[in-house]
Amino acid sequence: MTEDGMELEDASKETIEEPAVPAEPQLPTEFEKLFKGCEDNPEDFNGWVYLLQYVEQENNLVAVRKAFDVFFLRYPYCYGYWKKYADIEKKHGNIQVSEEVYRRGLQVIPLSVDLWLHYLAFIKENADPTDPETEGRIRAAYEHAVLGAGTDFRSDRLWESYANWETEQQKLANVTAIYDRILGIPTQLYSQHFQRFKDHVQNNNPKHFLSEEEFVQLRLELSKANLAANIGEDGDTPRVTEIENMRHKVIETRQEVFNHNEHEVSKRWAFEEGIKRPYFHVKALEKTQLNNWKEYLDFEIENGTPERVVVLFERCLIACALYEEFWTKYAKYLEGYSIDGVRHVYKKACTIHLPKKPAIHLLWAAFEEQQGNVEEARGILKSLEEAVPGLAMVRLRRVSLERRHGNLEEAETLLREAMASGKNASETSFYAVKLARQLVKVQRSISKARKVLLDAIEKDQTSPKLYLNLLELEYSGDVQQNEAEILACFDRALNSSLPLESRLLFSQRKVEFLEDFGSDINVLVKAYEEHQKLQKESEPTKRKAENGRLIFLFPPFQQQYGSWGQNSWGQYNQYAGYNQYYPPPPT
Amino acid sequence: MTEDGMELEDASKETIEEPAVPAEPQLPTEFEKLFKGCEDNPEDFNGWVYLLQYVEQENNLVAVRKAFDVFFLRYPYCYGYWKKYADIEKKHGNIQVSEEVYRRGLQVIPLSVDLWLHYLAFIKENADPTDPETEGRIRAAYEHAVLGAGTDFRSDRLWESYANWETEQQKLANVTAIYDRILGIPTQLYSQHFQRFKDHVQNNNPKHFLSEEEFVQLRLELSKANLAANIGEDGDTPRVTEIENMRHKVIETRQEVFNHNEHEVSKRWAFEEGIKRPYFHVKALEKTQLNNWKEYLDFEIENGTPERVVVLFERCLIACALYEEFWTKYAKYLEGYSIDGVRHVYKKACTIHLPKKPAIHLLWAAFEEQQGNVEEARGILKSLEEAVPGLAMVRLRRVSLERRHGNLEEAETLLREAMASGKNASETSFYAVKLARQLVKVQRSISKARKVLLDAIEKDQTSPKLYLNLLELEYSGDVQQNEAEILACFDRALNSSLPLESRLLFSQRKVEFLEDFGSDINVLVKAYEEHQKLQKESEPTKRKAENGRLIFLFPPFQQQYGSWGQNSWGQYNQYAGYNQYYPPPPT
Repeated sequence: MTEDGMELEDASKETIEEPAVPAEPQLPTEFEKLFKGCEDNPEDFNGWVYLLQYVEQENNLVAVRKAFDVFFLRYPYCYGYWKKYADIEKKHGNIQVSEEVYRRGLQVIPLSVDLWLHYLAFIKENADPTDPETEGRIRAAYEHAVLGAGTDFRSDRLWESYANWETEQQKLANVTAIYDRILGIPTQLYSQHFQRFKDHVQNNNPKHFLSEEEFVQLRLELSKANLAANIGEDGDTPRVTEIENMRHKVIETRQEVFNHNEHEVSKRWAFEEGIKRPYFHVKALEKTQLNNWKEYLDFEIENGTPERVVVLFERCLIACALYEEFWTKYAKYLEGYSIDGVRHVYKKACTIHLPKKPAIHLLWAAFEEQQGNVEEARGILKSLEEAVPGLAMVRLRRVSLERRHGNLEEAETLLREAMASGKNASETSFYAVKLARQLVKVQRSISKARKVLLDAIEKDQTSPKLYLNLLELEYSGDVQQNEAEILACFDRALNSSLPLESRLLFSQRKVEFLEDFGSDINVLVKAYEEHQKLQKESEPTKRKAENGRLIFLFPPFQQQYGSWGQNSWGQYNQYAGYNQYYPPPPT
Repeated sequence: MTEDGMELEDASKETIEEPAVPAEPQLPTEFEKLFKGCEDNPEDFNGWVYLLQYVEQENNLVAVRKAFDVFFLRYPYCYGYWKKYADIEKKHGNIQVSEEVYRRGLQVIPLSVDLWLHYLAFIKENADPTDPETEGRIRAAYEHAVLGAGTDFRSDRLWESYANWETEQQKLANVTAIYDRILGIPTQLYSQHFQRFKDHVQNNNPKHFLSEEEFVQLRLELSKANLAANIGEDGDTPRVTEIENMRHKVIETRQEVFNHNEHEVSKRWAFEEGIKRPYFHVKALEKTQLNNWKEYLDFEIENGTPERVVVLFERCLIACALYEEFWTKYAKYLEGYSIDGVRHVYKKACTIHLPKKPAIHLLWAAFEEQQGNVEEARGILKSLEEAVPGLAMVRLRRVSLERRHGNLEEAETLLREAMASGKNASETSFYAVKLARQLVKVQRSISKARKVLLDAIEKDQTSPKLYLNLLELEYSGDVQQNEAEILACFDRALNSSLPLESRLLFSQRKVEFLEDFGSDINVLVKAYEEHQKLQKESEPTKRKAENGRLIFLFPPFQQQYGSWGQNSWGQYNQYAGYNQYYPPPPT
């Protein structure tokens, strides 16, 4: 097992089925059962928790490795489990492997101050104090840690630990250098750091806590100033005063940085206060926290440096790893900076955290298509469909991808496939309508389209949409030449088993069609009479409905934006029932 | 004033303004005021009642004639007023004119038993008993009366009066002939007639109450029978027995007719019971009475002779003269028998009783068009429009009439005229849509249609229908070539001041259009993002609505039958807001 965190992110779904550690026949049945459960239902976080508890208790290293490795493919942000994993390896004496585990974890969540602190404790504990390289190695680890997590608003413990360690090593100039870095970073305990820095300055000799360069420089400055002040006098200023002056000067310089940093902190304070759960958890975040993240990000995008924005996104995407919108926001933000960065974000979101979320996959596929990587886009959509079958949006995007790239046959095949595997009649009809439109508008074959719709009606006789699309198909041509076909289409719907309400609408439209385009007044009069009959049939229902809450259904019917016919809805209702059972107006 | 009832029916609306009696300067101001009121508002029946009361009191014959003549143009079925009118003329000694008034009234409502009885009383009263022609004249009047009203179920008083009068004249054979007619007609007092007939037979000598022909015939039959019975005996049967036998035979023959008639009466009894107001009144009839008429007519159409059906229609159309549907039913019934009859019914309905009811005018116009009388149809629609301006249904029928007869310019002119005189923006837009479709589909000029819609949008910027029709126009062509125009169309709607809900729908459709037919994934992604923004904008409203009753609006939106785009409504909503403020499903 040598793969590191970065490789984890490349892991496609298939690798879940191939455990990172080769299966061994000796593993207990109970383990296999629990493991199978997690494999079958990886979304069930509790299942994983049981599995990991189980392997920890059983202490079977093969099982431990198999469980943790597969777990981290899905939940790499659970820093506590990395620590547990490393501890188990350590307990088995595998110090090297343990360190490897820490490194893998830190590569995946370099912002985890806790994991860094555990790691630092681990390497200090396992270092050889007699080895002259140890100090350098630990310092390098600290450097690695502050580079990874040191700009986090909550990184104070890490910085403090670093400063304390350098103090212990009596590298006071290093301590100063650490404070010089942290004092410029907006963090939660910014003010405490400044206090400690002042203590550090007061309690030590500048010669020790300044770098040689700064010390010399400062001394030069101070003596020039003294010369100017004591001009003509005999120069024998006491030594103590010079140290105080240096201390004063050192703090004075930092005070400015501190003030600026305090201002930066104050701007972020409310946002940081709003972050109640900075770590990863499968449970949902409250709306207020999500809003806070969004507003914080917008603030930082507006006011911060790209570096700070990226760090904030990375922090956000630990807490909000299961929220598509933040990944999307991150990708959009990166579009202005780095195409590879965008791709990396999409890939991470889609392959690790949100393997079943359609919208972000669609965006990723669109992004790759924009970049000219059609094959990549195709693959993304296809594997999303395998992960979450039956989504219209995804199937239609696959169709449209093929269409955009001229593969009309493939587009048609995809739609026919979707029709064939529709979960129910209405889904099949939905795709039939899409296919028919494609055939008319893109392939320009009215006859193929007509066949698709007629076949679909055969199978789904109560879908108004099918009849309507057939109607639209016939209507799209020459209405005078096609009058018979159009009327046949109306009659097909009117003689169908469609619900009365739908037939009423078709009958309404038939009358309007005949009024607008029909050639024969007899046919119009007859259609109008039939329409009135239908209306009477529907009256009891309508009346009943009007007595109840369904009355609210009617306004939108009148407002609906059907493209033809519906516009004059009401034209024929204006008098229907007018003089039937109500007092007629005086004539 | 010599016009008769038939001419009344021919009177077109204009003649109302020209009083039948030339105006005289001497008429009182009060009269002129009341008369003007009725002319201006002829639908106000009470106004007429005041006017007629006034002229009756004032007793100014010129005013009386002017008022009654004009009143009867609108309300010819008010038989009581004919009587009043005749009485006033009589009071002034104008016996001839009075009789003329009766005749005019009876020509218009020949089914009015009351008016016939008044008329008969009038002519009896004014007849010269010494004139040998008087009896014949009165008998002719009775004949006229029973021909006009004698088949009415409630004509008993008339028949009885006739029989009594003949009895008074001692024309007992005539009385028998009258009973022979009434006994075969289903009437209310059918059984009383039979009783009276039996009394008539019992109290009189067959020689007197039978016609000579029947008497001789009957005597022959009876003597043959007696011969057969008393064969070989010496024939000296007593005279009394022969009379009894004749009476028995006479009644026996009528008993069969009576039985059959009783059966006919029984079938109609419930219907007749249901007729609570057989006379004309401007007040509305209750629903149960209207239903009763309808069912009775259907029964008679199914079971009665055409003659009885027509009589029932005529009776019905006195009580229900203000109900379009019965006129229509009558016209439809007559279609099978007489084209002139149909025309007569439509004309009577439209020119006298229902001058402002559109549906029956449309049917009349359609009927004339069917008969090839295009000019007549045109005139009917035009005068209806003058009487009731602003009805879309009527204007569109005028347009379609011209279109059907190839007058495309006139059809266009009528639509443009309607646009120009629209009561409000929405009405103007309605006609703009109709015109645009006409231009595309009939005149085949997309550019003219586009101009109509663009101009209409300029004037009415918040009509979704206009944008939608423009869209449909562009979409009806080659969607690949027209992509830019179609997108511009979407954007015009999206950048308009349309309500959010409409813009949301356009945005939805834009996304779907791009998915189905767009050439550029970038444009699709961008449109989808814009759509999501719009959705978020609409969320607070939506949520508010969901808390209230407006939640019922949503199902029909999903069911609406817009021809394209709407079919996949929901396709893009499936995930919108999915992972925003709600717990994400485990990934």
